[in-house]
Amino acid sequence: MTDRFLRACYRQETDCTPVWFMRQAGRYLPEYRRLRERYGLMELCRHPELAAEITLMPVHRFAVDAAIIFADLMTPLEAMGVDFEVQEGVGPIIVHPIRSPDDVQKLPVPDDDAIAPATMQAIQIVKGELNGLPLIGFAGAPFTLASYLVEGGPSRDFAQTRAFMFRHPKAWHQLMAKLTETVVRYITAQVQAGADAVQIFDSWVGCLSPTDYCEFVLPHMCQLFERTAPLRVPRILFGTGTATLLPLMRQAGSEVIGLDWRVPLDEAWQALDFAVAVQGNLDPAVLLADWAVVERHTMNILRRTKGKAGHIFNLGHGILPQTDPSIVARLVDFVHEVTDRQRGWR
Amino acid sequence: MTDRFLRACYRQETDCTPVWFMRQAGRYLPEYRRLRERYGLMELCRHPELAAEITLMPVHRFAVDAAIIFADLMTPLEAMGVDFEVQEGVGPIIVHPIRSPDDVQKLPVPDDDAIAPATMQAIQIVKGELNGLPLIGFAGAPFTLASYLVEGGPSRDFAQTRAFMFRHPKAWHQLMAKLTETVVRYITAQVQAGADAVQIFDSWVGCLSPTDYCEFVLPHMCQLFERTAPLRVPRILFGTGTATLLPLMRQAGSEVIGLDWRVPLDEAWQALDFAVAVQGNLDPAVLLADWAVVERHTMNILRRTKGKAGHIFNLGHGILPQTDPSIVARLVDFVHEVTDRQRGWR
Repeated sequence: MTDRFLRACYRQETDCTPVWFMRQAGRYLPEYRRLRERYGLMELCRHPELAAEITLMPVHRFAVDAAIIFADLMTPLEAMGVDFEVQEGVGPIIVHPIRSPDDVQKLPVPDDDAIAPATMQAIQIVKGELNGLPLIGFAGAPFTLASYLVEGGPSRDFAQTRAFMFRHPKAWHQLMAKLTETVVRYITAQVQAGADAVQIFDSWVGCLSPTDYCEFVLPHMCQLFERTAPLRVPRILFGTGTATLLPLMRQAGSEVIGLDWRVPLDEAWQALDFAVAVQGNLDPAVLLADWAVVERHTMNILRRTKGKAGHIFNLGHGILPQTDPSIVARLVDFVHEVTDRQRGWR
Repeated sequence: MTDRFLRACYRQETDCTPVWFMRQAGRYLPEYRRLRERYGLMELCRHPELAAEITLMPVHRFAVDAAIIFADLMTPLEAMGVDFEVQEGVGPIIVHPIRSPDDVQKLPVPDDDAIAPATMQAIQIVKGELNGLPLIGFAGAPFTLASYLVEGGPSRDFAQTRAFMFRHPKAWHQLMAKLTETVVRYITAQVQAGADAVQIFDSWVGCLSPTDYCEFVLPHMCQLFERTAPLRVPRILFGTGTATLLPLMRQAGSEVIGLDWRVPLDEAWQALDFAVAVQGNLDPAVLLADWAVVERHTMNILRRTKGKAGHIFNLGHGILPQTDPSIVARLVDFVHEVTDRQRGWR
């Protein structure tokens, strides 16, 4: 249907700027909320037909340039035998959090075909319905998965994760290696099932200093991107609060870096030496305001791209549950129209 | 006893680097936990003798170069008629959060002498015990107080606060003006009671983009620092996740900027044009590791100062409850010793 999204990932010229939204298949859609009344979150992830249906919801409503498979960051951890429940409005609660090097030892690396078979089936179903629209697969990054495993519940600053890292550096690297291997297998399976691109969510890595990112995370991220390079699909690396980490994240080797809303897009792209495509970075809270506010913030972002190839429009984090879908529809069309005209201006 | 801390605030030479810790009077001290078994947090704040006793606990244990008055960020909001309870391990829960411009209208600005009289008495008691050691007063910054009022409970990303700001800019500015006036009066009263310096905690302002900080926060911060300048005490402005906000925070007009652990101290100081003193910025989670790790991270910070005058050693956020007080004692002495020697090297 359109290759805008994939072309932009590789910084190739496009007719207009591609758009998709993190959590575009989620709680702000009434049709999704209706499903959630009957099924738990992980239940939806485990039913290929339902996961496929949800993935397609935003595609039916909006002119988005990509679909993203409906799954949960915790999905691959199920195959590692991690016991957890997802609490409404709280997030995943781990029954036995990782507290010692011994707990890391015990964690198995699952076989390729054991990781989220329902998600792979959902990808196959969705692919048959997309008429060529690209499908994005995704996974939590090793650090972010580790932070869930170590904290065991919601956290604002992930201090327990950092403390574990500083106290048990060897066990930490072992944990990261196991998670990296699992993520590589999970991502590989998604691409083999039909995903055209993948996003790695390192949502909470912004709690680290650059020095600690370098020592405790970067080697594993390099490994992850090296191992998934043969898949020949563009890979997006996204995190929040990453202003000081961007040059290091670039070294990890993804084709695209996702930016949260706190970094001005032009400065962030410059910090990345314009060597990768960038995705983002509208504050999701802006979508709760009037259209005039949405338009002003959107134009601010588009202007900062200076019309350069390699920008994928998105939010700076997931769409908020209170968002009005009609504003989302208008925003997609607006970005397409304005950037089409922008190209005329050049 | 020592004027190291105050001299460093003004970027004057000192015999060695001054040290204090955010939350140094808190839950990691067994003598504090014993008190907490008998009293609630806000109860302790309301008893001048107890608040004074807690303020002095770290001074009796460690060679810190300043005391900070024991109070809660929410303390001045009590005088604004805000009803809340502080939940153990969760934080303040507001009974009637601010949900509309009307709620802002109704919020009164309290008279000077109505704001936290117990804290002022505690300051007077502490001053009599400090033998000249400087006492730091403090307040939450208007944005951070507003974020508590709007969110009503714990939040990871403060999306409701940003949404309120975008939706109701007029009411937002009115709210910020009322909070600024309250904070100015609260700070003024603390200095009049005897505080030798003040720290403004804008703990959660890092959730804003620079553009939004400029529009929604900076004018009020300029006002705050202009109005408190005649007090002639050094003012420290601290926030977390502020990597992209530092040059704007400097414009607000404080003598010192507090840095969290995610910004390399030398780069941050440069972003501030070396025009203010800096405070920080050891990751509090480092204190949960072995001494060798603490020493390595501490040396990293001290090296980045290049021995320049105007560095106050501190953590990048509050001391964690699991911290061993004996590591804290060792760290204070270590910073004093090393920086004394460092001066010999120059």
